[in-house]
Amino acid sequence: MRVFIAGVDGYLGWSLAQYLAYRGHEVAGGDLFFRRQWVEEIEAQSATPIRPMDERLVAFKENFGQELVFKKGDLRDYDFVLKFFNFFQPEVIVHLGEMPSAPYSMIDVHHCAFTQTNNIVGTLNILYAMKEVCPQAHLVKLGTMGEYGTPNIDIPEGFFTIEYRSRTDTLPFPRQAGSWYHQTKVHDSHNIMFACKIWGLKSTDIMQGVVFGTRIDEMRDDERLLTRFDFDQCFGTVLNRYCAEAVIGHPLSPYGAGHQKRGFLPLRDSMQCLTIAMSNPPKEGEYRVFNQFEEVYSVTELAEKVAKVAVELGLKVNTSNLENPRKEAEEHYYNPDHNHLLNLGYKPTHDVEQELRITLKDLIQYKSRIEEKKETLIPDIRWDGTRRKSRFLIEVNR
Amino acid sequence: MRVFIAGVDGYLGWSLAQYLAYRGHEVAGGDLFFRRQWVEEIEAQSATPIRPMDERLVAFKENFGQELVFKKGDLRDYDFVLKFFNFFQPEVIVHLGEMPSAPYSMIDVHHCAFTQTNNIVGTLNILYAMKEVCPQAHLVKLGTMGEYGTPNIDIPEGFFTIEYRSRTDTLPFPRQAGSWYHQTKVHDSHNIMFACKIWGLKSTDIMQGVVFGTRIDEMRDDERLLTRFDFDQCFGTVLNRYCAEAVIGHPLSPYGAGHQKRGFLPLRDSMQCLTIAMSNPPKEGEYRVFNQFEEVYSVTELAEKVAKVAVELGLKVNTSNLENPRKEAEEHYYNPDHNHLLNLGYKPTHDVEQELRITLKDLIQYKSRIEEKKETLIPDIRWDGTRRKSRFLIEVNR
Repeated sequence: MRVFIAGVDGYLGWSLAQYLAYRGHEVAGGDLFFRRQWVEEIEAQSATPIRPMDERLVAFKENFGQELVFKKGDLRDYDFVLKFFNFFQPEVIVHLGEMPSAPYSMIDVHHCAFTQTNNIVGTLNILYAMKEVCPQAHLVKLGTMGEYGTPNIDIPEGFFTIEYRSRTDTLPFPRQAGSWYHQTKVHDSHNIMFACKIWGLKSTDIMQGVVFGTRIDEMRDDERLLTRFDFDQCFGTVLNRYCAEAVIGHPLSPYGAGHQKRGFLPLRDSMQCLTIAMSNPPKEGEYRVFNQFEEVYSVTELAEKVAKVAVELGLKVNTSNLENPRKEAEEHYYNPDHNHLLNLGYKPTHDVEQELRITLKDLIQYKSRIEEKKETLIPDIRWDGTRRKSRFLIEVNR
Repeated sequence: MRVFIAGVDGYLGWSLAQYLAYRGHEVAGGDLFFRRQWVEEIEAQSATPIRPMDERLVAFKENFGQELVFKKGDLRDYDFVLKFFNFFQPEVIVHLGEMPSAPYSMIDVHHCAFTQTNNIVGTLNILYAMKEVCPQAHLVKLGTMGEYGTPNIDIPEGFFTIEYRSRTDTLPFPRQAGSWYHQTKVHDSHNIMFACKIWGLKSTDIMQGVVFGTRIDEMRDDERLLTRFDFDQCFGTVLNRYCAEAVIGHPLSPYGAGHQKRGFLPLRDSMQCLTIAMSNPPKEGEYRVFNQFEEVYSVTELAEKVAKVAVELGLKVNTSNLENPRKEAEEHYYNPDHNHLLNLGYKPTHDVEQELRITLKDLIQYKSRIEEKKETLIPDIRWDGTRRKSRFLIEVNR
């Protein structure tokens, strides 16, 4: 396949480029290095020492025997997208080029408006450029399980057939997202569904769970191939944050009651799933939704798993819940479907503990980089619009 | 009430300012005169000879004995919104300041991206400024019945309680909008619902049907008080377009089969409904949805009504369907609820024919202004992204 990756410098993008090149696919990608800027802006850093793109490209060529066709550019610039598609003629477009942090989007009105325009316009430009250049291509778009929120009924994969007042229809499942960032993914989903309907484009919209882990096997021991690993309040997802905390002896810190349930999957499974989606495209005009995760856990169960593995590795670990800076249900029903990818052959390859073992071992090497920025582990961006560091609930209740 | 109207220079905004001032409310408004620019851009004009804002403001003062507090500015500029709210301290914010045309949003990628960013960022800025300045104020936001699309089940007012796999929840009704413009209203709805949830703001989101008519009684015979009346393919809604067509002897031109059903209401009823919503605010943190229309008709039934009244007034009328430039269902079930406003006291004041009589009589005075721009009656903006004038279906089938 000839695959274009929007956001190829990111956590998933850089990994996916390698995963695909290793399997003989032709890969191109674009990036504006926004993610590096955002992380710098909030005074954080990747635990892994990621290299500038020019070094990455050299390492890529050495390891996979092919160039990664890379251009720096802005997805909000239609001409950039159009010219790249014209030049590369992608068969698959994987859209990972969005601002992916809920807290970052909640900082203030400017971060909110930036997040919404950046994510929405990038997606619209991709849709128009597809229509113009490659209407037969397949758009694999990263959404999030967070689009659905936590309804009191089962969550199907995108659509459900319901009876209402004695009539029946199959409709998009209602979305109740929990941050300005998550809302952008909802907006994208609506826009993409519409483009498929009116222009006959095909798209798989991935409602992805929380991804964790430092590596995929294709990165081997070449440090230049390592992908970024964020652990700060904005860009560090919960499991990655726990792992960073465990490595430096900081309490593992679930937010609030800690009973929030989410779907999770290791980085390597995300790569597998995305590739399965690419290899099994929808038909012309079809907009389909995959819920992409391995298993549902509460954030407390995950802390327990990290603690268990960390102790095995000789780390000292305790857990202490933090005031929840978010406005979210901390006790809720949660039962999302996730059959589409399993039906297409997705084989969860590792258990969570094995993946955590690999991750913790990797992070121990970069302990000092986590120590340097450990202040960013404690959230201070609050959903009420204020900035105040969350306290540990033990202190609050004292 | 102290009411701020975003988009006070528009069709609804200018009418509402008068309707409220006449009833003793204090009114302020902002506008960037974008609507005048867009109509000029597509080489159309208002059938009614609308005045520049400085003349409007003089006439307003003379007729209603109070100033309309007006500032020119851009809703995408947060400082403009914040300063205006700080100065005026609104109790109600009526948000009519969006790009309201489906075809305009479908012209090309740039019009699409402009429409989405303009509408979304304006609404986000209003939400943030409310939170900052007047969190107790009531946001009355104009959405559209077009957010729902045409599902095969009844359309409730925003939310519905459903059973799915033996569990029950009350959820937002799924949205399936039919243009980039309509999608912005869906995005706004999601954003506003979220702001109410996290910040305790209160909002009424109006899913308005198609408004028609030239006037409200408060405009009396002062031509300076007339609101705009667009009849072009972009900004002319279907009934207003039919009226303009009838006046110049152009065939009334339903799109496609003409069986598309929509909810309609006269301009004066829109004013009544909006004021009822304002006078009965939701409680803190409540996001509620009103479906605002008087009656559902097919676009062919409406052409028949216009023809009947036009003939009574001595006009020669025929009807001829045009190729449908849109991608939409032309045969569909349609049964939207509209009880909330009726329960609060909405009294539909005129029958459609009486309103059409008033509208046609008004337009006959401005016949030459319609003649001048009659080319804009025939759509050429197509949902497939091309530009080609629709032909009359009689010619197509010949």
